[in-house]
Amino acid sequence: MPVKVIAFDADDTLWVNEPYFQETEMKFIGLLDHLLKPHEISRELLKTESDNIPLYGYGVKAFTLSMIETALRISNGTLDAETIARIISLGKEQLNHEVELLEGVEETLKALHGQYRLVVATKGDLLDQERKLRKSGIEGYFHHVEIMSEKAPSDYLKLLKHLDVQPEEFLMVGNSLKSDIIPVIKLGGYGIHIPFHTHWSLDKTDVKVDSPRFREVASILEAKEAIANL
Amino acid sequence: MPVKVIAFDADDTLWVNEPYFQETEMKFIGLLDHLLKPHEISRELLKTESDNIPLYGYGVKAFTLSMIETALRISNGTLDAETIARIISLGKEQLNHEVELLEGVEETLKALHGQYRLVVATKGDLLDQERKLRKSGIEGYFHHVEIMSEKAPSDYLKLLKHLDVQPEEFLMVGNSLKSDIIPVIKLGGYGIHIPFHTHWSLDKTDVKVDSPRFREVASILEAKEAIANL
Repeated sequence: MPVKVIAFDADDTLWVNEPYFQETEMKFIGLLDHLLKPHEISRELLKTESDNIPLYGYGVKAFTLSMIETALRISNGTLDAETIARIISLGKEQLNHEVELLEGVEETLKALHGQYRLVVATKGDLLDQERKLRKSGIEGYFHHVEIMSEKAPSDYLKLLKHLDVQPEEFLMVGNSLKSDIIPVIKLGGYGIHIPFHTHWSLDKTDVKVDSPRFREVASILEAKEAIANL
Repeated sequence: MPVKVIAFDADDTLWVNEPYFQETEMKFIGLLDHLLKPHEISRELLKTESDNIPLYGYGVKAFTLSMIETALRISNGTLDAETIARIISLGKEQLNHEVELLEGVEETLKALHGQYRLVVATKGDLLDQERKLRKSGIEGYFHHVEIMSEKAPSDYLKLLKHLDVQPEEFLMVGNSLKSDIIPVIKLGGYGIHIPFHTHWSLDKTDVKVDSPRFREVASILEAKEAIANL
């Protein structure tokens, strides 16, 4: 395998992320459950998030703005200032959340470090991802952090150009088939999929991947062996 | 001069930016001028922005959240939903603003392209900066966009490592002495300063730069000659 660069998705691949969004959403629903049923609030929030992605992109700031916009819409202009202030605090609390590394991350990085150039390739806010990387203590294993505005094939092409590597020299490790694996396999790169127990509904896919350059493993602890056997 | 990479700041170096923030701020003040005097609202907003930088970083989403937080604070909890909705719209309008390239940018990039690896090195949101780059039609001149969470010497060290160049192989062009020039000169790199007619108060400095690796020019049209004479 001619791979030189291994890129790791960050959220729910290196550290816990989606569960914190879900916790924030539960608290958000708690602020508004006199207006709509919980699943209706979730549906409205998802609609706002989805509509705002082209303008806001990903991350907690975008999520906070979408929560405020959703609250304004479903309250028909009756929302009080206190609730808005609470939503802003929910966003800040999430940004300040402790970082919880997934099991086996550090020992896997230690084993791969030196053999490959390791990078983080993630959507979301640079500042927030750098903060998590610093807090997590694994910053030293990575050459740098790549923030991607999307994870479509064209974005990976830009990344490969930026990294000065060919597709077959690039391997992506991540929890999202749609964002981390399928576009990379399509371009001729390698992909290791590590499913996470919970997944954002806007990032799901039904597509099956079948390629000799693809492996699915149950935990990052198995990634090293899967890479060696590719 | 051993420079291999020329990095351009984006906002108010390649295209107009700060005046749009000021326009948005004027409209924001117009929503609240029954509560405080305009300069008092500006002062409160600046205080919120400044307090939020470590958590939110830069860019329009951060600015929008800081406007909402400021409005909540100065209205003492009496803010109506309509005003919040207007503030969210102000932020979206700014994100959708047309892109106005500064005079001479394209011909300067055309002249330097091929001789040097050109990159954009900017704070703010990747998605927003990529959008501006695409809209402006100058995307093709650049190798890639570097988003920096801050522009302190340590951030430039990371950038140099990432670009695989030495400080003396790096030249930065920008409108901010504090963010674009001083840290780069300090590290041993080159800097071309192009002052812009208006400047964000949190990005000002009184420090004077005196280095053979530094030039100040009146417009980007003079940058090419200044680079040749360094």
